[in-house]
Amino acid sequence: MSLTANPAEPQPLLLRTEGAGGCTTLTLNAPGKLNALSGAMLDALDAALGQLAQHAACRVIVLRGAGRAFCAGHDLAEMMAMDEFAQHRELFARCSRLMLKIQQQPQPVIACVEGAATAAGCQLVAACDLAYASDAARFAVSGINLGLFCATPAVALSRNVGRKAALEMLLTGEFISAQRAEQLGLINAAVPADALDALIEAKVAAISAKDSGALAEGKRLFYRQLETGSAAAYQMAGASMACGMQQAAAHDGIDGFLAAKTAPKAPRMT
Amino acid sequence: MSLTANPAEPQPLLLRTEGAGGCTTLTLNAPGKLNALSGAMLDALDAALGQLAQHAACRVIVLRGAGRAFCAGHDLAEMMAMDEFAQHRELFARCSRLMLKIQQQPQPVIACVEGAATAAGCQLVAACDLAYASDAARFAVSGINLGLFCATPAVALSRNVGRKAALEMLLTGEFISAQRAEQLGLINAAVPADALDALIEAKVAAISAKDSGALAEGKRLFYRQLETGSAAAYQMAGASMACGMQQAAAHDGIDGFLAAKTAPKAPRMT
Amino acid sequence: MSLTANPAEPQPLLLRTEGAGGCTTLTLNAPGKLNALSGAMLDALDAALGQLAQHAACRVIVLRGAGRAFCAGHDLAEMMAMDEFAQHRELFARCSRLMLKIQQQPQPVIACVEGAATAAGCQLVAACDLAYASDAARFAVSGINLGLFCATPAVALSRNVGRKAALEMLLTGEFISAQRAEQLGLINAAVPADALDALIEAKVAAISAKDSGALAEGKRLFYRQLETGSAAAYQMAGASMACGMQQAAAHDGIDGFLAAKTAPKAPRMT
Repeated sequence: MSLTANPAEPQPLLLRTEGAGGCTTLTLNAPGKLNALSGAMLDALDAALGQLAQHAACRVIVLRGAGRAFCAGHDLAEMMAMDEFAQHRELFARCSRLMLKIQQQPQPVIACVEGAATAAGCQLVAACDLAYASDAARFAVSGINLGLFCATPAVALSRNVGRKAALEMLLTGEFISAQRAEQLGLINAAVPADALDALIEAKVAAISAKDSGALAEGKRLFYRQLETGSAAAYQMAGASMACGMQQAAAHDGIDGFLAAKTAPKAPRMT
Repeated sequence: MSLTANPAEPQPLLLRTEGAGGCTTLTLNAPGKLNALSGAMLDALDAALGQLAQHAACRVIVLRGAGRAFCAGHDLAEMMAMDEFAQHRELFARCSRLMLKIQQQPQPVIACVEGAATAAGCQLVAACDLAYASDAARFAVSGINLGLFCATPAVALSRNVGRKAALEMLLTGEFISAQRAEQLGLINAAVPADALDALIEAKVAAISAKDSGALAEGKRLFYRQLETGSAAAYQMAGASMACGMQQAAAHDGIDGFLAAKTAPKAPRMT
Repeated sequence: MSLTANPAEPQPLLLRTEGAGGCTTLTLNAPGKLNALSGAMLDALDAALGQLAQHAACRVIVLRGAGRAFCAGHDLAEMMAMDEFAQHRELFARCSRLMLKIQQQPQPVIACVEGAATAAGCQLVAACDLAYASDAARFAVSGINLGLFCATPAVALSRNVGRKAALEMLLTGEFISAQRAEQLGLINAAVPADALDALIEAKVAAISAKDSGALAEGKRLFYRQLETGSAAAYQMAGASMACGMQQAAAHDGIDGFLAAKTAPKAPRMT
């Protein structure tokens, strides 16, 4: 079950990419290492997102983990092999850039979680736009159990859930259930394992049916406006919507809607 | 059922104003257009809020929609009739000013939601200080279904509910139930339709019994302190409370409380 | 039942300090005044936290109230005896400094709430890192009932719960139940009264088992990163984690974990 990364060609092994319709599924594929975010895995994810950003046919991205875990966070053996502050700092900076890249990605990114998501793996769930999980999934930011507070995961976690719940997870290192993760807002919904694929498909279908330009601009605006005060947020949002109104998608969409609304009334008028 | 606004005198038709006790109810009254926020409706709301701000007898404002919907957002036909970026930009800026005005209003503003609240109608619910809904109400930011991402609604929505839930609504355009809206924090409570008026009356009664000056200053402080860091927030809040202590309302209120607390003990002492 | 503070030696009366293992329990001990945050009580808490910050053996702090209430907020008689703005301003500034000090405390601070927590007492719960309550506990920011909006409590409250729920409490002055407080995120959990001590003990045990240096740096980082944008937050968090990796605690913890993971596989390999 354990995989050895081939440095010459790590991507095909580490990250599986599958496309169907407008949806691209990226599967973290190092089950023997619980899909750890090794340097090679971070690179593979970064490269895949970069390519998909240019790939107009891709409308939505689903992120999965192969095997029994979603993702167990950083590759600890690799981290221990580094012995300088600068190396660790660069590792966490690289990982942080990936998390921010998910939010900068033009396509919506959906985490599909089965099994455990821990430390930077839990952060990955928090960094995705949407997340759905099997009832059996569980979540922890458990670095503190090994003497290392999950500081970078805390950034993403505390922007998804309330501060007391986030601190409880960070200070105790305890797991929470998928049901609790749903209540807290870390994930959108937890469903029985055999209903998860259908739920993901339904969300993918709903999103794929939308105009991808409007989605991309909307997603970009969403994260930007979260970082400012209300008045500035309204200014950028108003400008974004006014731009949106100049696009063919909105023009045609609203035109079609108004026409359809009028149409059924015609018979009644005769 | 459809109403035609009379440009010469739009307010009586578009927005119904009724006062009872210290409570003023504003009813969006364009049921044939699902109470759309047309330019005229925005003006009518703006004017009504402006007048009520000067009206000391008004202690609390309740916002309702006539007919089967609460509010369906912007008037799409009107929006399509505008063909310049500057016009749309001004429309969204005007709508945003109204949303911010609700928070600047000295009186608490309560949304009472029956039926659907969509797009800027959902934003209106989010922008109110408090919101209560019938179990049958439902909420969506559905612009994306027509190719137009609900950017300005996202500002208000994402300041009320967690980011994953907000993004799910914005990216899929799907409706959520009143129960879900309560869980997410978009509304304070969802109750059976026949219990909604009694709930609103109870909240109106509770708020009307308070000192209106203290409420106005408190509400102003509340939104201001939300936009700063904790230390600055405590500074402005501390100054606000110290000012409050110099007012007759607090002085008399606390005096009365202390006197009442002492009084019942007297008989026991004899 | 009523206590009179002895100005010469207020601490032993007002604040009970008990240590067991790595846990220090601070008990607000003015049950006759519902553990009001008088000037003397604020001083006692400030002094106790200051001493514990230097006390390496203390790993976690639990805050309790003696008698039937957790804490009823400021001492109203004392507040009324002050007649100048500057005095009230200093009182609220002093109280705010205490609330911020709890978050600056190197040890995690856990509120254990039985009975009522009102006004600045509710703020105290919100300011703690974690909070657990008996099912019978209840919470209010009820200053508005006496004509004084709970402005400083609003700062802490609105950083724990959504804005509509916070405003409902602030504008109506109404109590919420422990169950509702849990749903809103004001507390981590509400349990039957006879299960509260065991729950606190379990959390204390979980936290005490962690490295105290990692907890202190993690807690400090947590509150700092909450006050900035995502990119800046990731930068400070990445630096914090890279520092953490240079500490013996993380080094030994991760080493031990990796060794244990390898060890059980050995027999299977023979």
